[in-house]
Amino acid sequence: SDVYKRQILPSPYWPLIRGIVASRGGVPVEVPFWDRLGQPGFDPEAAIARAITDRSVALYLNSPNNPTGRLLSDDLAAALARLAARHDLWVLGDEAYEDLVYADEAPPPLWTRADLQGRIVTTHTFSKSYGIAGARVGYTHGPHDLMKAVRGVQTFQVYCAPKPMQIAAARALREAGGWVRQAREAYAQAARRAAAALGQPVPEGSTFLFFDAAPAFEPGEDLLAFLTRVLETTGVLLTPGVSSGADYPTHVRLCFTSVPPEDLDRALALLAPIFGRA
Amino acid sequence: SDVYKRQILPSPYWPLIRGIVASRGGVPVEVPFWDRLGQPGFDPEAAIARAITDRSVALYLNSPNNPTGRLLSDDLAAALARLAARHDLWVLGDEAYEDLVYADEAPPPLWTRADLQGRIVTTHTFSKSYGIAGARVGYTHGPHDLMKAVRGVQTFQVYCAPKPMQIAAARALREAGGWVRQAREAYAQAARRAAAALGQPVPEGSTFLFFDAAPAFEPGEDLLAFLTRVLETTGVLLTPGVSSGADYPTHVRLCFTSVPPEDLDRALALLAPIFGRA
Repeated sequence: SDVYKRQILPSPYWPLIRGIVASRGGVPVEVPFWDRLGQPGFDPEAAIARAITDRSVALYLNSPNNPTGRLLSDDLAAALARLAARHDLWVLGDEAYEDLVYADEAPPPLWTRADLQGRIVTTHTFSKSYGIAGARVGYTHGPHDLMKAVRGVQTFQVYCAPKPMQIAAARALREAGGWVRQAREAYAQAARRAAAALGQPVPEGSTFLFFDAAPAFEPGEDLLAFLTRVLETTGVLLTPGVSSGADYPTHVRLCFTSVPPEDLDRALALLAPIFGRA
Repeated sequence: SDVYKRQILPSPYWPLIRGIVASRGGVPVEVPFWDRLGQPGFDPEAAIARAITDRSVALYLNSPNNPTGRLLSDDLAAALARLAARHDLWVLGDEAYEDLVYADEAPPPLWTRADLQGRIVTTHTFSKSYGIAGARVGYTHGPHDLMKAVRGVQTFQVYCAPKPMQIAAARALREAGGWVRQAREAYAQAARRAAAALGQPVPEGSTFLFFDAAPAFEPGEDLLAFLTRVLETTGVLLTPGVSSGADYPTHVRLCFTSVPPEDLDRALALLAPIFGRA
């Protein structure tokens, strides 16, 4: 049974992962992590280590990270791999944004690391790389014995990915490399424009800016009231930070790839003054 | 938690339902039922009643039934509805074959019954009616509060049906009524030809014949050896009855809609002598 098994979720995290863990009887353990990377006094390895108990079974790693756009460095990946080995944890690798890295030099993907072989199970999706989230196609790989269990769950949960979408995905793999390169360049430009307009650091990957919006709140305003005001005055829907972890009650997530560049520029021009950028 | 909750599966049943129940922590309770309907001395209501304990939470009803092609009569449905009410059971209605009924007069679908309102949750699929199982599209309806829980599971399990397939399904609903009527007539003919060729009763619905193949076994042959011999000598793959319940160790399932009519006739001509029909 999965009951009482703790899964460590470095936060902020992909909003669905908490419920995925909890709905299978696992216990999600949130560890503020991605937004702290590089901050003075923050020891990311120690932060994860403190969360591990003898009930811990897995560590979820999503690099590039939704929502911060941060990448796990080679050194930090090695440190977490040592932790996982010491405590015999599975590593759940989420490669949703693997093709959307804007940094010049990116560390190798976690699933290619020798020090994670035998304990990492990795999920890829066509949703982000190929812009077809509605197709519901992806793939998972990992150690042979673990994949037997994954196939068992798949059979009784979804049976298979929709076949027409599998055929589309196979064609995307063969023919859409050029599209992905163009999209990445367009997304990188959108990332730079969004970061500049709102005074945020340029994300290393993913499709988001994630930052504390508290300085922009009006007196007495909470996150929901703020998001509602932004929506009503600008037409832009920002995502509440609490969906990415309890530690982010005043953060917001902006997706800079959900509209064409000209619409993004219009949105940024409307948002900038709200965030004190005239 | 679902742990130790018993779900009653009248057998023979759709091969996937047992694992779906078990993989969520439920306890599947098999009750030989569909193939016994109408047999002297078999009391279907008493058979289900005997399986109910205070750990029972749900009764799965799939009419037309995969694999027997049997329908639940109006009287029997009323008796089971009384049982469900008395023991406060959910009824899980599986309408996969709702459009594939060949009997002249069919009882009303379970989900339309007044005596099941408030306790029946019903799933429909486009897989069988429209021949698009690979599209992975269907829908579920039931009491308001229960549907909140269903939506929660959906969010963290599949998120949504693939959008292109939803669009195809919507178009099928609007435009494919004529196709369904033609398919039903073609399937009804296939059902009659298959039943006649193998000396079985004509199924009232579904796409299967289901019968005990033991008389056709050679000395020392078990089900797997028999199925292998049939496959190797005729090219026809029959499904093992044990997939539909522990009570069917020598039964087989034949799907009469998986090939065009001329291929079916060729298969039946090869199968008939094996089952003693020269």
